[in-house]
Amino acid sequence: MRNIKITLQYEGTRYQGWQRQDSTDNTLQGKLEALLGKMCGTRIEVQGAGRTDAGVHALAQIANFKLPDSEERKPEEILAYMNQYLPDDIAVIDATEVAERFHSRLNAKGKTYHYRILNSSVPHVFLRRYAFTVTTGLDVEAMREAAAFLCGTHDFSAFTSHRKSKNPNKKSNVRTIYSIDLEKIDNDILLKFHGNGFLYHMIRIITGTLIEAGMGKIKPADVGTILASGQREEAGMLVPAKGLTLVEVHYSEEGRIT
Amino acid sequence: MRNIKITLQYEGTRYQGWQRQDSTDNTLQGKLEALLGKMCGTRIEVQGAGRTDAGVHALAQIANFKLPDSEERKPEEILAYMNQYLPDDIAVIDATEVAERFHSRLNAKGKTYHYRILNSSVPHVFLRRYAFTVTTGLDVEAMREAAAFLCGTHDFSAFTSHRKSKNPNKKSNVRTIYSIDLEKIDNDILLKFHGNGFLYHMIRIITGTLIEAGMGKIKPADVGTILASGQREEAGMLVPAKGLTLVEVHYSEEGRIT
Repeated sequence: MRNIKITLQYEGTRYQGWQRQDSTDNTLQGKLEALLGKMCGTRIEVQGAGRTDAGVHALAQIANFKLPDSEERKPEEILAYMNQYLPDDIAVIDATEVAERFHSRLNAKGKTYHYRILNSSVPHVFLRRYAFTVTTGLDVEAMREAAAFLCGTHDFSAFTSHRKSKNPNKKSNVRTIYSIDLEKIDNDILLKFHGNGFLYHMIRIITGTLIEAGMGKIKPADVGTILASGQREEAGMLVPAKGLTLVEVHYSEEGRIT
Repeated sequence: MRNIKITLQYEGTRYQGWQRQDSTDNTLQGKLEALLGKMCGTRIEVQGAGRTDAGVHALAQIANFKLPDSEERKPEEILAYMNQYLPDDIAVIDATEVAERFHSRLNAKGKTYHYRILNSSVPHVFLRRYAFTVTTGLDVEAMREAAAFLCGTHDFSAFTSHRKSKNPNKKSNVRTIYSIDLEKIDNDILLKFHGNGFLYHMIRIITGTLIEAGMGKIKPADVGTILASGQREEAGMLVPAKGLTLVEVHYSEEGRIT
């Protein structure tokens, strides 16, 4: 079998997220599998590195899929074929043939996501699909202080909509956040998250909590208390998906085998 | 009469340009006049600084309109009213009350427009509405050299779709370009035009001509010859509207009276 790795860009607005659903094909995985199935005349399964939620965007999502050896198209021909038939809010920006053992999700060592906040009382036409608007003035320094409590390896149960399973064989809610950088240019605030993996809704609940710190509703140190509590009810709101973008998937050298 | 100056942002994609047409209201001026007419219960005429074409965007278009003294809403209330009813691809980002003699177009001393080129063989999802894609590699230095021939005060008849009138009372095609700056970040090329005014299609025909220089189809110095010829046929193609954005309208100190 041939193994093809692709880099994908998409505007998540119109889609029900990455993961294929049984009843509908309005997912990114579903769209891609339908297209590749048509190209090859056989069912193709596409594995994505990050299962982005409905409405979440991607600048460089990584995916891979196996093709029968009889499929002779070169990677650049596959890229051209896919871009010809994909809608204009999805694009394949790179395609390469990789070793058969490469798996976009299992080999990923980390991910970078950006969450964008427009801190303004007036709308911004060009950010309306990509940023969450907060009209109350935000104290960016307080947000940075609060974010520092979340860096490192922790049980992030307080910051996920996914309940911790009592089944000990299920994966834990322990994750490592390497960094949360906050950049502010005028009214445009960008939160850059780099971690080894993120739980369901984790970045959006963390962002909602950091916004509360920025508004002065909670103190930065309270974020540490919320983290320790492990209780979702203690954390802030789930902010909208449209502000979130998967920016990069990181692989170790071995993962980047081509 | 009260005189209100507003700063507008819009994504031009869905509109037939700035200027009101008789038969349709799908223009920016038409939309704004209809909304203000509803607000005031009387016909309001909106003057825009730049008559952007169909599909052209604006980051900060300036417009002004006169209100009867009986209209007591403060500028910030007018801004809030307008943003409440405008579609999400149009926004009022500032509103102030100015001296009665201020006219957004007649007082404008210059304008800055950006034209964005995506120089890539693969699509870019997030620039698809705001950039024109050129798949052939462009020599940016040749484009810069070519652009230099256009800076200064010239008759730009070769670079407009508007025929020069034989009527001596009509305005000439002489304009001054203060600067054309070309910025390139990866595949993203931004042409920044600053001039005292631009003729119909002028920036888009200049850009089409600079692209030909970047492709090596013409030499940079040929741009000077084209300019001197005054013949539209000699210049390059009219590039699509979607790459063009009105970024700033410049006023002298007096023009910025508040």
